[in-house]
Amino acid sequence: MRRLTNIFGGDVVGPLGGGFNNGGWETNTLVSDLTTVICLDDYHLNDRAGRKVTGLTALDTRENNFDLMYEQVKMLKEGKKISKPIYNHVNGTLDTPEDIEPTPIIIFEGLHPMHDERVRDLLDFTLYLDISDEVKKNWKIQRDMEERGHSLESIIADIEKRKPDFNAYIAPQREHADLIIEVLPTDLDKEDKKTLKVNCIQKIGVPDFSPCFLFDEGSHITWTPPADKLSSPPPGITLASGPMEYMGKPAQVVTMDGSFDNLSELVYVESALKNINSKYFGELTQAMLKLADAPGSNNGTGLMQTIAAFAIRSVYEKKTAAAKLAALN
Amino acid sequence: MRRLTNIFGGDVVGPLGGGFNNGGWETNTLVSDLTTVICLDDYHLNDRAGRKVTGLTALDTRENNFDLMYEQVKMLKEGKKISKPIYNHVNGTLDTPEDIEPTPIIIFEGLHPMHDERVRDLLDFTLYLDISDEVKKNWKIQRDMEERGHSLESIIADIEKRKPDFNAYIAPQREHADLIIEVLPTDLDKEDKKTLKVNCIQKIGVPDFSPCFLFDEGSHITWTPPADKLSSPPPGITLASGPMEYMGKPAQVVTMDGSFDNLSELVYVESALKNINSKYFGELTQAMLKLADAPGSNNGTGLMQTIAAFAIRSVYEKKTAAAKLAALN
Repeated sequence: MRRLTNIFGGDVVGPLGGGFNNGGWETNTLVSDLTTVICLDDYHLNDRAGRKVTGLTALDTRENNFDLMYEQVKMLKEGKKISKPIYNHVNGTLDTPEDIEPTPIIIFEGLHPMHDERVRDLLDFTLYLDISDEVKKNWKIQRDMEERGHSLESIIADIEKRKPDFNAYIAPQREHADLIIEVLPTDLDKEDKKTLKVNCIQKIGVPDFSPCFLFDEGSHITWTPPADKLSSPPPGITLASGPMEYMGKPAQVVTMDGSFDNLSELVYVESALKNINSKYFGELTQAMLKLADAPGSNNGTGLMQTIAAFAIRSVYEKKTAAAKLAALN
Repeated sequence: MRRLTNIFGGDVVGPLGGGFNNGGWETNTLVSDLTTVICLDDYHLNDRAGRKVTGLTALDTRENNFDLMYEQVKMLKEGKKISKPIYNHVNGTLDTPEDIEPTPIIIFEGLHPMHDERVRDLLDFTLYLDISDEVKKNWKIQRDMEERGHSLESIIADIEKRKPDFNAYIAPQREHADLIIEVLPTDLDKEDKKTLKVNCIQKIGVPDFSPCFLFDEGSHITWTPPADKLSSPPPGITLASGPMEYMGKPAQVVTMDGSFDNLSELVYVESALKNINSKYFGELTQAMLKLADAPGSNNGTGLMQTIAAFAIRSVYEKKTAAAKLAALN
């Protein structure tokens, strides 16, 4: 989210109303100059206590109020102010609603942005971050086992417990995303549990969106740069690009498998990436350098997030220009 | 050879003295405006009858007169006329020598251009055409079995018979070549006996020669173009490029595996090939189109031959320019 709001040119990114000094309410909403980020958890139907009664998880679509979500997304898109509920993650309550002013860009993030067809149709561009089970497990093991001392069994049990609802209510939304960032374990060393392979899967035929690629559009390319141009820790780094089918629909994928040592060398990768919707050559590398401390800055997750941010900016600018033109005529 | 002499700008390529109207002698020497092509068979030590006595094949280095070869290569390089023997391939005799005038470019082709260290050191650029055993067998089967009705056993016996001398006297020269064109069976379909995979292996560090590559120097790249840009018959077409080690020495390889349908579409491949020493973009494709009827015009053999021809022209031009400069000082 930081990579995205950063691209939209807001240094001022923070909680609505100024956070803990905002008059005392707990908010999930972030704002910058142009952008509002709304967390869809705020549309939970019941509070935590209520879910204890129903016995359903928050992943379950029945625990979310899609009628209200649709109505409010629609109003914001029409430029109208809304009064949106707040789901308090700390104590699991539904708090007093907050007023949201429409901004030029509104980002809806959360569990079910693409579940309801009415909501989906209102969104100009949709993104799904798909962390593979293997990577989720590796991350959880690193955090919960190595750092918090949990047992491997309890970690796996925890993952397995969420799986049925995840597969039933979250995963199916992938099909509707315009861009999917897939995070997988590296293919370069089967024993390596930390290095990531990241696919940026871009649907073909999305209005105002033209997918990026390496070197040559429409070709299948694999690319292993030399170490003197892009230095990387073991097991090395390989990129790829090409057409593919994603859940039955034509798409174009750009892949980065592996990490790099030196963020400034990313400009060399940038030189091979075409159609990334940057304003000038070097902007991708600069955007990554600005957030050098953010997670994923040395691998494909940060890269693909930035590419996605550029794509979203470009869609925004094209739609805005078209709207302005329409208003003139 | 036609691809090479064509690049050097000679429409007039023909036997020395005008061929069968040249006064009656049988020659192996070809000439164009700038170029003389000398066949090293002319340095056979004995005629066919003589080899019957020694019991050695013409592949055997002992059946070749390297002292004379060295002396005459040296004289030609010094701009002196030579009187070179002629080996008559028709009746296996050593005929009356012919006079060879030094031309700016002299090409020595044959079995042992790189065997003798003294000769090798005189050559400005060396090329080895390495047809793999598998491809030789497939070609021989096509020609001798399918077209001439020979048995498979006799064909294989014929190949096996030549192998020991080939491996002892011819193959070791590969190590000394500046550029090696390797012709292999396709990797794209193990059952396919006709489609070729061709490697253009270019040594690094050869004076006045800078190897070509696809897209990005020093990277390992595999490239499968889309059918709408480069149409190809089954099993398709894939290119590759990257650094490698060839017999212990650093090299750079460009590979074309598969055939293409339409020579004019090669311009698309040309756009991805860098450092091919062409005079202008499109020259590679035009050179191939000029000789569209020559063997290999629809696959990597013709392509790599043309790339080799450009490399040789470039070496020639750089050496000539350096010599002119030296003469001025």
